[in-house]
Amino acid sequence: MSDVEAADVYVRGYSLGNLIGRLSFASATYLLIRGVLPSPGQAAVMEAVLCSVLDYSLKKPGTVAARFCVSGNPSMVAGLAVATLAAGEYTLAPDAAGRFIAESYVQFRRPGEPIDACAEAAIDHVRASRQRIAGFGHPNFRFTDPRAQTLKAIAVKEGVWSDVCDWYEAVHRAFTARVGKPDLVINEVGMLAAILTAMGFTPAEMTGLAVLSSMPGVIAHVSEELRSEVRIRALPDEIVDYPRTRRDLDGDLAAAGWEA
Amino acid sequence: MSDVEAADVYVRGYSLGNLIGRLSFASATYLLIRGVLPSPGQAAVMEAVLCSVLDYSLKKPGTVAARFCVSGNPSMVAGLAVATLAAGEYTLAPDAAGRFIAESYVQFRRPGEPIDACAEAAIDHVRASRQRIAGFGHPNFRFTDPRAQTLKAIAVKEGVWSDVCDWYEAVHRAFTARVGKPDLVINEVGMLAAILTAMGFTPAEMTGLAVLSSMPGVIAHVSEELRSEVRIRALPDEIVDYPRTRRDLDGDLAAAGWEA
Amino acid sequence: MSDVEAADVYVRGYSLGNLIGRLSFASATYLLIRGVLPSPGQAAVMEAVLCSVLDYSLKKPGTVAARFCVSGNPSMVAGLAVATLAAGEYTLAPDAAGRFIAESYVQFRRPGEPIDACAEAAIDHVRASRQRIAGFGHPNFRFTDPRAQTLKAIAVKEGVWSDVCDWYEAVHRAFTARVGKPDLVINEVGMLAAILTAMGFTPAEMTGLAVLSSMPGVIAHVSEELRSEVRIRALPDEIVDYPRTRRDLDGDLAAAGWEA
Amino acid sequence: MSDVEAADVYVRGYSLGNLIGRLSFASATYLLIRGVLPSPGQAAVMEAVLCSVLDYSLKKPGTVAARFCVSGNPSMVAGLAVATLAAGEYTLAPDAAGRFIAESYVQFRRPGEPIDACAEAAIDHVRASRQRIAGFGHPNFRFTDPRAQTLKAIAVKEGVWSDVCDWYEAVHRAFTARVGKPDLVINEVGMLAAILTAMGFTPAEMTGLAVLSSMPGVIAHVSEELRSEVRIRALPDEIVDYPRTRRDLDGDLAAAGWEA
Repeated sequence: MSDVEAADVYVRGYSLGNLIGRLSFASATYLLIRGVLPSPGQAAVMEAVLCSVLDYSLKKPGTVAARFCVSGNPSMVAGLAVATLAAGEYTLAPDAAGRFIAESYVQFRRPGEPIDACAEAAIDHVRASRQRIAGFGHPNFRFTDPRAQTLKAIAVKEGVWSDVCDWYEAVHRAFTARVGKPDLVINEVGMLAAILTAMGFTPAEMTGLAVLSSMPGVIAHVSEELRSEVRIRALPDEIVDYPRTRRDLDGDLAAAGWEA
Repeated sequence: MSDVEAADVYVRGYSLGNLIGRLSFASATYLLIRGVLPSPGQAAVMEAVLCSVLDYSLKKPGTVAARFCVSGNPSMVAGLAVATLAAGEYTLAPDAAGRFIAESYVQFRRPGEPIDACAEAAIDHVRASRQRIAGFGHPNFRFTDPRAQTLKAIAVKEGVWSDVCDWYEAVHRAFTARVGKPDLVINEVGMLAAILTAMGFTPAEMTGLAVLSSMPGVIAHVSEELRSEVRIRALPDEIVDYPRTRRDLDGDLAAAGWEA
Repeated sequence: MSDVEAADVYVRGYSLGNLIGRLSFASATYLLIRGVLPSPGQAAVMEAVLCSVLDYSLKKPGTVAARFCVSGNPSMVAGLAVATLAAGEYTLAPDAAGRFIAESYVQFRRPGEPIDACAEAAIDHVRASRQRIAGFGHPNFRFTDPRAQTLKAIAVKEGVWSDVCDWYEAVHRAFTARVGKPDLVINEVGMLAAILTAMGFTPAEMTGLAVLSSMPGVIAHVSEELRSEVRIRALPDEIVDYPRTRRDLDGDLAAAGWEA
Repeated sequence: MSDVEAADVYVRGYSLGNLIGRLSFASATYLLIRGVLPSPGQAAVMEAVLCSVLDYSLKKPGTVAARFCVSGNPSMVAGLAVATLAAGEYTLAPDAAGRFIAESYVQFRRPGEPIDACAEAAIDHVRASRQRIAGFGHPNFRFTDPRAQTLKAIAVKEGVWSDVCDWYEAVHRAFTARVGKPDLVINEVGMLAAILTAMGFTPAEMTGLAVLSSMPGVIAHVSEELRSEVRIRALPDEIVDYPRTRRDLDGDLAAAGWEA
């Protein structure tokens, strides 16, 4: 990515000293990961993408985990690492949707054929192999997810939207028609994956960007926890169900075959 | 620590193939960290030390953090790393006590002089420099901590107890007398630090052993959480206090100096 | 796992104060994870299992990562967390073998039928679905892996070996015959998975035990690195290949569509 | 930080749906951590600050650690957590400088008195208590660090530079004069700490921002490592010095007091 000389650091070939004050952080993120400078449109989409999963309250397991962690070990870096580690299969990880989009596009999108027919073939395959399609559904939204639609509007306006994004929407149409659930939305993680695929990011990079996007909220939460000076935070007894069995060690050891 | 040949691995000079079935895990732990085989007495103390901080329920922030983490990212290694990261200044870290014991012993324990006089000089110094002594006090125990005393009894019986352990007890006597708190205990983390100092472990290694000791409980908790299949665990709303302010973005941006 | 009262902690129903000095750490590990006391034979197998993947030198990516980490952040807990995080798909994780053993046993092992015929059916299925079987093969060993065989001998002697272990060996025989590779070994991770399945551990717990087993070596390495006082360890230039391209920021920004 | 309603998420009181496309990611970072919208000048400084420690090559221990980690466990989130954990006392952590600046400013900066006289008093105190001042010195730069000066120029231009920044420069002048090292620079971590103190960030938040700034480079490195498909990366033998001692287990066990 970078090389270091006695008097400067070169990031993807550009002097770091020159980049500071010229590129926004979101543009620098694009440069480091994709290896080339973004266009103004790509930069605008990066800003929107990095703001799209900012939301982080105590509904997110990583934030809760980070706050408990720093109540024992009052360290910002420990808290950030802990929150990062809670991103995975069930939350904050667009890589599954990204992989599905890229693989299904390669396998089923035939140029020159109607996109909806291709998408129906993809859905047949998905249902036959009992796969789940990532990026569909939301606990609160029906028919459309407004954040996903805001992202789409920006991607369209900035010229980043492409055939692979249309493909994901076609797959979504085919799926909701087939299973008879017209109100099932493309959620913001799915839309993120579609747009980032169009921009050339790999699935692992998408998850990296989602974690990056969540970092400012985690910094704020960890900072608040550190300033609270709560030590050794524990779950209140009333929300935990402890087993209260008492056992006899000597008797049970003898029963397990140990001599006295 | 180890070197690897085509057909075997050598751990501190011993063929790993030979060690399996000959050494207990606690003895192997001693060998790896201290570099030599333990005597039977040292091995018995290691078993006791590694059992002494086993306790891990949802009173420990690391365990709670690990369970929240795996409800988002169902991964045993992520859960173990998270629980590890919650050990620090406020919990599970005997290194502060270990450092105090070693440094005060070198500085104030004069051979040939009465140990209590030396300890009083150490306490004068500690109080003048407003230091805290780690390893004293417990939320539930007064006068003695029974787990700490069990550890001491084993260390004495197995011949591991030494002058540096007497030193920590003398410092404790001098401190409780000086501050007029005769019921303040040496807790199990303090006793652990004294015994491990006598055995030649460094403060950082003591914290490593405390984390190791807590691992089986964390494995059990993470396993239970993974089997529960709870996804995206959140704190219940009734125990969190969210700010409910609503603000006006356009107005506030204008007030901050941004043009429309 | 545990509950905490004013004056004691109960671990799986036993007073922690009573356990210290009575149980070895390996037995306590069994108790915490399985929920019941081990028999003497099960305890002996636990000691062997926890010693079997002790080996940790700079051939292990987690150890290298931990040493680099603490050269920037001199913290034992950070080093232990980093080494833990390097366990996964390619190393130190018996869970894939454990899952295969349990699932194939349920699906293909028919009581009353010859085990080798069942195993051949399983291999047909594996090969048709292009799965990989975890736990076979080793860079240095041919025909047998001596550490795996030591583990097996202990499991047999202590009465822990069971039909599910025979099953994994039968699958191995069927596989090596079918692919014509008679020298392909069951490695120690595969053998570990078979024995731990027989003892009732889940795949995730197996990975937890493998990480636990590797901890003493990591503690030793991190301690050595901390005592070395090397700061900000870097890879030597001669083993890294840096790109040395130099680019023109102003020209490239203009080419990407940015106005000056 | 945020609260979640059925149909929207509120970040510091603003609807997240409204923020996307309106705020840059750097501005959103300021909002989340500081709790209020930045002015255009503060936003420009945030962009520069987040670009200032972007540099990340294999000279940084966290990047090396992350690459080794994912060669065993091919997971983006594990790699990001590992790189995060390498930030600390020796690298990437402006919190020590931030704490020094805030504490010395409160203690020694007397309004109405000449700043250089106050700074000399602070230096007397620092030298008497044998403290180190964080943020001074660089392996390659003499007299000035060009990146630090670029940051300063932007902070001055955008109106963020304040008396506390002048204070850190006065302390630097007093220190270099007193120790006779006129070529010792304020490095970019020191300058970062001064500017972020002026903007109201806490020391822990500064370290969070430094980790955030380094994330895009880590994402790029982890992605490159994952695409390389190198498995179980090890240090080459020629750069490691292994002990090659061979020992006799039976003899040494007997010598340690174990019966055969």
